[in-house]
Amino acid sequence: MDFQTKLSQLKTILEEVADLDSATNLLDWDQQCYMPPGGVEDRSNQLATLKRLSHVRFTSDEVGQLLEDLQPYATQLDPDSDEARLIKVTARKYKKNTRVPSEMVAEFAQMTSLAYQIWQVARVENNFTKFSPYLEKIVDWKRRYANLFVPYDHIYDPLLDEFEPGLKTADVKAIFNDLRPQQVTLIQAIADRPQVDDAFLHQPFNEHMQWEFGVKVISKFGYDWNHGRQDKTAHPFSIGFGVRDVRITTRVYPDYLSSALFSTMHECGHALYDMGVDPTFDRTPLADITSLALHESQSRLWENLVGRSHEFWEYYYQRLVDRFPSQLGNVSLEAFYKGINKVKPSLIRVEADEATYNLHIMLRLELEIALVEGNLQVKDLPEAWNARMKEYLGLIPPNDADGVLQDVHWSSGIIGYFSTYALGNLISGQLWECIKADIPNLSDHIRHGEFGELLTWLREKIHRHGSKFVLQEMVQRVTGSKITPVPYMRYLWNKFGDIYGLRPSMS
Amino acid sequence: MDFQTKLSQLKTILEEVADLDSATNLLDWDQQCYMPPGGVEDRSNQLATLKRLSHVRFTSDEVGQLLEDLQPYATQLDPDSDEARLIKVTARKYKKNTRVPSEMVAEFAQMTSLAYQIWQVARVENNFTKFSPYLEKIVDWKRRYANLFVPYDHIYDPLLDEFEPGLKTADVKAIFNDLRPQQVTLIQAIADRPQVDDAFLHQPFNEHMQWEFGVKVISKFGYDWNHGRQDKTAHPFSIGFGVRDVRITTRVYPDYLSSALFSTMHECGHALYDMGVDPTFDRTPLADITSLALHESQSRLWENLVGRSHEFWEYYYQRLVDRFPSQLGNVSLEAFYKGINKVKPSLIRVEADEATYNLHIMLRLELEIALVEGNLQVKDLPEAWNARMKEYLGLIPPNDADGVLQDVHWSSGIIGYFSTYALGNLISGQLWECIKADIPNLSDHIRHGEFGELLTWLREKIHRHGSKFVLQEMVQRVTGSKITPVPYMRYLWNKFGDIYGLRPSMS
Repeated sequence: MDFQTKLSQLKTILEEVADLDSATNLLDWDQQCYMPPGGVEDRSNQLATLKRLSHVRFTSDEVGQLLEDLQPYATQLDPDSDEARLIKVTARKYKKNTRVPSEMVAEFAQMTSLAYQIWQVARVENNFTKFSPYLEKIVDWKRRYANLFVPYDHIYDPLLDEFEPGLKTADVKAIFNDLRPQQVTLIQAIADRPQVDDAFLHQPFNEHMQWEFGVKVISKFGYDWNHGRQDKTAHPFSIGFGVRDVRITTRVYPDYLSSALFSTMHECGHALYDMGVDPTFDRTPLADITSLALHESQSRLWENLVGRSHEFWEYYYQRLVDRFPSQLGNVSLEAFYKGINKVKPSLIRVEADEATYNLHIMLRLELEIALVEGNLQVKDLPEAWNARMKEYLGLIPPNDADGVLQDVHWSSGIIGYFSTYALGNLISGQLWECIKADIPNLSDHIRHGEFGELLTWLREKIHRHGSKFVLQEMVQRVTGSKITPVPYMRYLWNKFGDIYGLRPSMS
Repeated sequence: MDFQTKLSQLKTILEEVADLDSATNLLDWDQQCYMPPGGVEDRSNQLATLKRLSHVRFTSDEVGQLLEDLQPYATQLDPDSDEARLIKVTARKYKKNTRVPSEMVAEFAQMTSLAYQIWQVARVENNFTKFSPYLEKIVDWKRRYANLFVPYDHIYDPLLDEFEPGLKTADVKAIFNDLRPQQVTLIQAIADRPQVDDAFLHQPFNEHMQWEFGVKVISKFGYDWNHGRQDKTAHPFSIGFGVRDVRITTRVYPDYLSSALFSTMHECGHALYDMGVDPTFDRTPLADITSLALHESQSRLWENLVGRSHEFWEYYYQRLVDRFPSQLGNVSLEAFYKGINKVKPSLIRVEADEATYNLHIMLRLELEIALVEGNLQVKDLPEAWNARMKEYLGLIPPNDADGVLQDVHWSSGIIGYFSTYALGNLISGQLWECIKADIPNLSDHIRHGEFGELLTWLREKIHRHGSKFVLQEMVQRVTGSKITPVPYMRYLWNKFGDIYGLRPSMS
């Protein structure tokens, strides 16, 4: 049998797996958006079954045999061709997934579907004890999972690898050790200057009008409503069911303008990536989300480097004032720009400014590592959280809802993900310097509310490739170097130098 | 290996199949409620894959062997016990499904997902020609399907059997032949009397307030929002994902009051059935919807025998007037009651009154049978539709959107279903006489907005049994006789006798 026949046999199985995974994503989307609470028991069973069937099918001997048969052909292909990469990416996933028993995959799906539901209640009730038994089970599962990959350099490596193939705990620690003092220096420099006023953001803003404004903005970004939609959830996210249906969610606070505005842009950034994947990759692992850091580089780029830029608001501010004249009529563009970029250590990660954001990530990474190492018990987590918040940001949360219970991730069994947010920030800085070099009049485009050329650049350089390339490989291809904090720190110093009147330190 | 072990092995497989089917239902619900149009190609693939996997698993030799092994034990059980019935119902489904190739099941799912999307557009555009190639494929598939069940008495039998196991085309024809002249006599008697005014129903009614009123009513009926929700769709339906998550949809017209009001009650009637199934049946075929006629008997009972009754409005009318004082303030309860029960031949089935409704069904049944027999071509369907509308109801649709394109069923591949609506009407009449005998003060309950005892009766006699019993068996158990039009016609004569001042003819 020839190469094409075998490849086509493989693709048929991959399509079946992709369809199961899309249905799983819909079960998940629905649980977060619309499912009545009483449906959770059935839902957790459904998720467990579909995840198990997908895993069984993907890890079947048939797939193993096809991959083995295809290997000799693959070595003769251009290693960067779609076909060679499909085989490579599938083989990597196969090698990893075959280590994990299907029953363990089902157990995880069922456990986290229930844990998510409990966490929602625990957070509202500010009751960590209600959630902790579920988190204990999740941490235990994650440790068992990691130990399927012995030998490892670090027990956290296999967890990180789920979200960022090839990246090691030691790599992340090295980058963060380099980054942390630079962030602290910046924050200190800002703290020494007169502070910015953002009280005008904390007023009543009509929820429907907030929603509509966000919709207008992301429509301009290029979000395609024929292939997507936006719903309200407690925690914004983006999710795809194939490359032709990529949805986002947001949340709207009636008395705080920034939340819906920037979370909408953030999730749109994710969705634009998935919507831009080469459609011929649909229903194959090349359309999967592989590198979460690359994904976050897109969401953070649209949210911050575009959405929190002066140029952006040169175009949009008057439009915003027109919608909210009583709240913003007396606020100048300059005051608004400074307000939405106010640097202030705060409790909630997703509301954090660009200068302090990465410290929230470092805190979580260290706690996750300690949990997985066994050096921290779940019951001691609130105390450890609060101690680190005090150390890093000078704040102690008044309650666990605004502390250790704030993020959705752990309840969904997502451990190993957080560092990708900070890495995404760094990459967004690297990309931005390349984009500005390639599109010299980018600032003018943004000043006129034009994002087409920017999106085209991102599609061409990044989105269309799907998960053909792993993180460092992709960053190297696009920017000419591996991940480095230098451009991002340069961006922060320039931006906050202007806003706070700092003396240049890194440019 | 003993009975319990084998039964438990069977149940494990049945649970997997049920989870796949629930996920399929969610894919379907989402396509009708929320999916962006551009997602249809991926969605049709997902539906095809999940339907195929469910079919493959259910029709596996393993299931066949377990059923065979369980048979000797089953014969020693009480034949009405849950276990005996589970085996019986599963064996019936197995015998039927194993006749159908899995690829044909997948083909059907993919085809109908696309056809549904096209039909939506064709209906808006009033363009039958756009839809007809898809319907041709569906009819062709149905004919191929039916011919897998040769020998049959009639080619339509296997299609009917999908929705009503055990019922034959000849049975339905016999019932309808008995019913038709009685309906025609009634309608003629009404036509000879002064007509009722319902113009007040055709005014602007605030959509949100219509929605809220419906929600209040079905909450009183017993719809459990912890295990359900309501959304808006072009075509109201109810659907379950396990017995603990049973959802309904409705549509709201801004200038016609009856539509949302009665479709909400109708779908609630369906949902109450599914919500009332013995929870131990969850994730087994005993929780499937087997008899659609029984299902329709519940929806039509709540919509009509309760929701269009005088007693009901004695409680609710003032509440409705309070919400819509400018529209209804000058309309008396008597005038309103007559208005919502106005008998008038009309174009649209779902808006039809109780006296003419069954004629809409007979028309569809005859056309379906002719299509499947090959005696009618799809291209000739609009003409045949209009000719029968003229003959039965004295009307010719001004366009296909209000004619042959009005119903969702054919686009979803549902052929063989329509007669269950009329049968459901007849059964609702039979049940109602039994209920009134068992709950002598039922009218008083309804006059006080109390439906608890009625729901308890329905749960006890019907809902909790799920699909343990087939149609005639269940009707016989509950009412003491098989399906007969007598009670329903008696109900119609009494009701419309009062409204139109007819001389008694059948009581």
